[in-house]
Amino acid sequence: MSGNVIGVPAPAVQYRQLLTGAARFTNDLPMEGLLVGKLLYSAHPCARIISLDVETARSLPGVAAVLTHADIPGENSYLYHIPDQPLLASDRVNYLGDAIAAVAAEDEESAQAALQAIEVVYEPLPGAFDPLEAMRPDAPVVLPGYANVIPSALFECGDLQTGFAEAEVILDNTYYTSWIEHAYLEPEGALAYVELDGTIVVYASNQAPHRDRMQIARALKIPEHRMRVVTPFVGGAFGAKDEAHVQIHAALLAQATGRPVRIVRTREESILTHVKRHPVIVRHRLGARRDGRLTAVQIEIIGDTGPYENAGRFIMGFAASVASGPYHTPNARIESFAVRTNNPISGAMRGFGGPQVCLAYEAQMDALAEELGLDPLEVRLRNALESGQVTPMGGIVREAGAVRATLEEAANNAGWRERNKIERQPAAHLRRGLGLAANWFIIGMGRGQDNAGAILEMATDGSVVLRTGAVEMGQGVYTALATMAAENLGVPLEAVRVIGPDTDKTLDAGPSAASRQTFVSGNAVLRAAAIIRRSLLETAAQETGLPIEVLSLKGGRLYAEGELLNYTIPQLAAKATFANRPMHADGYYAMEFPEELSTKSDYIGVGPSAFGTQIAQVLVDVETGEVIVEKIVAVQNVGRIINVGGAHGQMSGGCTMGTGYALMEELIVAEGRTLSDSLESFLIPTSLDAPEIEIRLLEIPEPYGPHGAVGIGEPALMSTAPAILNAVSDAIGVRLNRIPLTPERVLDAIEGAKR
Amino acid sequence: MSGNVIGVPAPAVQYRQLLTGAARFTNDLPMEGLLVGKLLYSAHPCARIISLDVETARSLPGVAAVLTHADIPGENSYLYHIPDQPLLASDRVNYLGDAIAAVAAEDEESAQAALQAIEVVYEPLPGAFDPLEAMRPDAPVVLPGYANVIPSALFECGDLQTGFAEAEVILDNTYYTSWIEHAYLEPEGALAYVELDGTIVVYASNQAPHRDRMQIARALKIPEHRMRVVTPFVGGAFGAKDEAHVQIHAALLAQATGRPVRIVRTREESILTHVKRHPVIVRHRLGARRDGRLTAVQIEIIGDTGPYENAGRFIMGFAASVASGPYHTPNARIESFAVRTNNPISGAMRGFGGPQVCLAYEAQMDALAEELGLDPLEVRLRNALESGQVTPMGGIVREAGAVRATLEEAANNAGWRERNKIERQPAAHLRRGLGLAANWFIIGMGRGQDNAGAILEMATDGSVVLRTGAVEMGQGVYTALATMAAENLGVPLEAVRVIGPDTDKTLDAGPSAASRQTFVSGNAVLRAAAIIRRSLLETAAQETGLPIEVLSLKGGRLYAEGELLNYTIPQLAAKATFANRPMHADGYYAMEFPEELSTKSDYIGVGPSAFGTQIAQVLVDVETGEVIVEKIVAVQNVGRIINVGGAHGQMSGGCTMGTGYALMEELIVAEGRTLSDSLESFLIPTSLDAPEIEIRLLEIPEPYGPHGAVGIGEPALMSTAPAILNAVSDAIGVRLNRIPLTPERVLDAIEGAKR
Repeated sequence: MSGNVIGVPAPAVQYRQLLTGAARFTNDLPMEGLLVGKLLYSAHPCARIISLDVETARSLPGVAAVLTHADIPGENSYLYHIPDQPLLASDRVNYLGDAIAAVAAEDEESAQAALQAIEVVYEPLPGAFDPLEAMRPDAPVVLPGYANVIPSALFECGDLQTGFAEAEVILDNTYYTSWIEHAYLEPEGALAYVELDGTIVVYASNQAPHRDRMQIARALKIPEHRMRVVTPFVGGAFGAKDEAHVQIHAALLAQATGRPVRIVRTREESILTHVKRHPVIVRHRLGARRDGRLTAVQIEIIGDTGPYENAGRFIMGFAASVASGPYHTPNARIESFAVRTNNPISGAMRGFGGPQVCLAYEAQMDALAEELGLDPLEVRLRNALESGQVTPMGGIVREAGAVRATLEEAANNAGWRERNKIERQPAAHLRRGLGLAANWFIIGMGRGQDNAGAILEMATDGSVVLRTGAVEMGQGVYTALATMAAENLGVPLEAVRVIGPDTDKTLDAGPSAASRQTFVSGNAVLRAAAIIRRSLLETAAQETGLPIEVLSLKGGRLYAEGELLNYTIPQLAAKATFANRPMHADGYYAMEFPEELSTKSDYIGVGPSAFGTQIAQVLVDVETGEVIVEKIVAVQNVGRIINVGGAHGQMSGGCTMGTGYALMEELIVAEGRTLSDSLESFLIPTSLDAPEIEIRLLEIPEPYGPHGAVGIGEPALMSTAPAILNAVSDAIGVRLNRIPLTPERVLDAIEGAKR
Repeated sequence: MSGNVIGVPAPAVQYRQLLTGAARFTNDLPMEGLLVGKLLYSAHPCARIISLDVETARSLPGVAAVLTHADIPGENSYLYHIPDQPLLASDRVNYLGDAIAAVAAEDEESAQAALQAIEVVYEPLPGAFDPLEAMRPDAPVVLPGYANVIPSALFECGDLQTGFAEAEVILDNTYYTSWIEHAYLEPEGALAYVELDGTIVVYASNQAPHRDRMQIARALKIPEHRMRVVTPFVGGAFGAKDEAHVQIHAALLAQATGRPVRIVRTREESILTHVKRHPVIVRHRLGARRDGRLTAVQIEIIGDTGPYENAGRFIMGFAASVASGPYHTPNARIESFAVRTNNPISGAMRGFGGPQVCLAYEAQMDALAEELGLDPLEVRLRNALESGQVTPMGGIVREAGAVRATLEEAANNAGWRERNKIERQPAAHLRRGLGLAANWFIIGMGRGQDNAGAILEMATDGSVVLRTGAVEMGQGVYTALATMAAENLGVPLEAVRVIGPDTDKTLDAGPSAASRQTFVSGNAVLRAAAIIRRSLLETAAQETGLPIEVLSLKGGRLYAEGELLNYTIPQLAAKATFANRPMHADGYYAMEFPEELSTKSDYIGVGPSAFGTQIAQVLVDVETGEVIVEKIVAVQNVGRIINVGGAHGQMSGGCTMGTGYALMEELIVAEGRTLSDSLESFLIPTSLDAPEIEIRLLEIPEPYGPHGAVGIGEPALMSTAPAILNAVSDAIGVRLNRIPLTPERVLDAIEGAKR
């Protein structure tokens, strides 16, 4: 039964509000009597707090509250995974983003004056700023009570010694990536107030409203049911709003003052405080036969995670899970560590550890091809994962047909096999190159650990309300879910109104992260829709006297084996309602697969896989080191296209972000101090920097995906940087091992090769 | 598994807000830029509109909009059951409550000025003001296109002729009741505004938010999913807010102006416009043997329903359904009619036709006892319905044990069998009497026609959010549902927060009417709770290694066969959440019974029965005709007491309202004009008028009730008026047949008997 909605080009849900400016983000929400909230951040990356005096600040005119750690009724910690990060530091600061006091005042000026009037006496301490040094036994302890090294994952399969013994060639290289700032349009913010019945309401730019509710309640020492968290329009998130940021502080200030309080971070505060993509060191040692087949892989992954664990353990765990890439690896040892330092906290960012290891394994595949004199495409095809194979992590890849399919599709579209015909040197100072990179991503948080609810309701006129706790942050989840609801209820997309996250309206859909919402919330929508569709079809069967099996719903009408009948869905909806049939349901989906899919990972359950391949064509100015990405051919298996525009948007956004990752994005941190603390010094691609992007979406269905679909938000980005790195290597004839490929690094590489 | 919450005395949910004044009713809701909305009502009970000119009104300063029938984008009608009532009259008015124009203005004065500037030219027409006259073929047609007489129900069982032939005594009497005003504290009101995304939001003092949503959407010609209806605190309803009132007009004005509009009726407008309890003429002819056993009953019920059908057909249908009372009636013919007139509209009010017929059948039982020289209690016991018997309507009464049980309990508590010992004449002008009346009520809208959803969610700290579309209007439904949720989840009552009707938050629970919410929404809560309880118990079984069957939850703790284990519900809630077990659910319940329970009624499905008995003791001043109700013993089977205070509150409120019905409440209507249009002329009992009330609640469980419970909101009221009427007859020795028993009527009866 096809409802003719899925895959049909349609504008995104809420596009009108975004285009007309009617969309209200946290900073736009109107509220009477609003106080301005601000946080005082640490002056040192590592110091003891000798004394903290807020009395003067409290007495200033216009100041409604100044809170310190002593004023928190409940737990003084975030609880993203473990409670090691204080909301307000008490005796010690561990990075420059640590907050020490929270202020609420009548206006911006009074709030600033209060911040300045707070007296903090620090005793600076020696910090740990290099993860390799921080791993040493004699390194300063970053966070008392916690070891600097967090062992994240250790996966072993086959026999490593035998594997390397069988190898005819061994390549041992180390790759380096940098801290990456998410640089979303909207910095973190929250608005909190107390309802007449005592309920505390928080509007926050977030990715996990239900987890926020829990975190705020435990800090305020109130039951969760007395908290309401609402997500308004969100101007981008990319993982950094999955953790709580200022929403707990805003709620604490509202609780203390009884008045509404809004905190919105400045861009500088945002860059200073929120998590960054981990800078990672990947040591990648592979063994292969002369025909290119891998015999062994040994990978060590070390991520600088900053002072607090945040998602560090899981991100390095996920990096280890997918570190062997979409290649069959019979003998492997993969180990990863998150290491505490006094640098910025690292955490979730689009890819969750995947982009870093993808850079390593794809650079290694090219290095292997070069070493063996083989076509990089051929080396990859010879090692491509096949359905049913077991990965080093222990999971069985159920459907791996997309590995070869995306490699072939990318090669065909980019003219890979005719690449010797391209003009390699269009000018004396220019060199052209092509690079290829595949990718593997696991969707969601894994079997047994990932679930979502979605409430669907069809009104008596056939219009539909879909309530989802999934956060729309630009990725198109409302459109995807509304499309699936419409498809399964046989109504047009416009018939569905989406109500987004509000813990008083919607149910927990888990975080909007891990490229999981299309899959997990999508399946929840299908389950809810099935109940309502059943009510409609039973009513139709009763009305028409036809067996339910021949009936279907499409475009607001009833069909019997393709023949249009004289019943509209509004008519059936009204009749079904008054015939006591359920016309609303909470669809609950928990990621479970009937097959026994073992895994050795504590952190990453087995989930559906996504595979893709990208080919980049670059032009390198060998005199300046500048790299211009001329074109990217991006091929991704999405299982099923739900919304065409949304899918393409994710792909082109991912490629652009990946281009920035490859060429320019790099947070400069020196001794714990972020030097590139604005968007003037931390560069991201503008539209002029974006390459031409040719997108090909394959539809090899994931058996358990809703309509076969898998997520693409993170996969979209994975291959771009390694494809560019391989293309630059191809252009200049030098292997590279560190991104971003700034002009200096490219020139250094060229110079180094000459020497 | 008892959670120790049900039946344990506990304060009502939200009592604090009501006691402290924090509760916000429709008229208290804050809103910037609010316009005052008002309606222009008809000047005649029956007239043609020759012309309607609103141009002057529109041009007045401060007037934002003046709408007539021509300005309604969608359907110009209410749709309570059939669309015969216009929102704004076009060519004709049919009663004084017909609205002709809707005005929105900056302030009260401008709105009033606009109303006065509207020019309406009427041609008065002859109306129909007496239902018996309106039934004649030559009567004026009240509503063109519709017959004056709406045949509501005809039930026949056995053989009437044989039944009367077997009778040794036949009593043929006619009983009369009056129009009753609901006289809730809060008159009807609504506040409407347009959201940034175009959704129209209406806050309304209502009983059926989802039906309101449908009605408003069809008038505004927008999809239902673009409407949001919210029910704030409601200051009483008693049935009259089950229909839509001004919420459609407020929404039309908000749509037209783009600004928020509030309409709140004045007390006079409220009395003038909203539905009243039907004044009914019941002709009741019974045949019985000398031993008091009924052989035949013939009942004709005629209700003055005003110009529009509203719920008239169903109310007269329900009256017919229960007109034989809690007595076995082997041969019967029961017929009922709703008759259109140009009087006020009659509609739903506490009892839904039941109180009127109860007056008739209970007066007849006493008349029969008197005729036969039998004890009125004995006559009733001899005819009492028994479980499994079929009523004239065709339904099988599944559990009728409470008929005899409440009769006996009432008799024992009121000293009925020793009533000859009471002081009959405490003073020369005073006469004391005792009267007895039983009752039968059917809960809900019946099998196949009655359903509700309820969403339950347990947070990770074990606190619970219950979302219900059931309206709390003082009857205690929030408390009842929260109690059942707490009981079934093993948490204390305080652990449950109730979110009430908001079509964006809650799902359709049907109208809060027909004493149905405890039963129907209660069952929905149980179904939702079962899913979450299962998750908790499965988690507990996994944690403890004990079989799930021995585990139970109570007071926030886990027990194994009564023994306290070392697990709290918050601990289990957190573990269950992270183990992918559903911790939220939409519980859907549709009234279905496994037994085949036939019915001949189109309107009233078979539902669970409630039975009760009341005994009134009165003192009559034979010189002034004044009746003082000294005491009422009220016995009701509630199946199971959910909240003790709530159950007693319903009973004492019902008895007080029934006392007003018996003695003083009477809307005076002359030629379609309501003369008693204020609470100075329409009298209701004050606390000084309220009798001493002794309440006894029986707990004979209804097999399909949640924890055995049935509703008591309407049953509470049913027997009071007939018990008082029978008591007055007992005191003065004269049979009576009309309420209210005003001093004039009582004196007339005494004088009549003397003549």
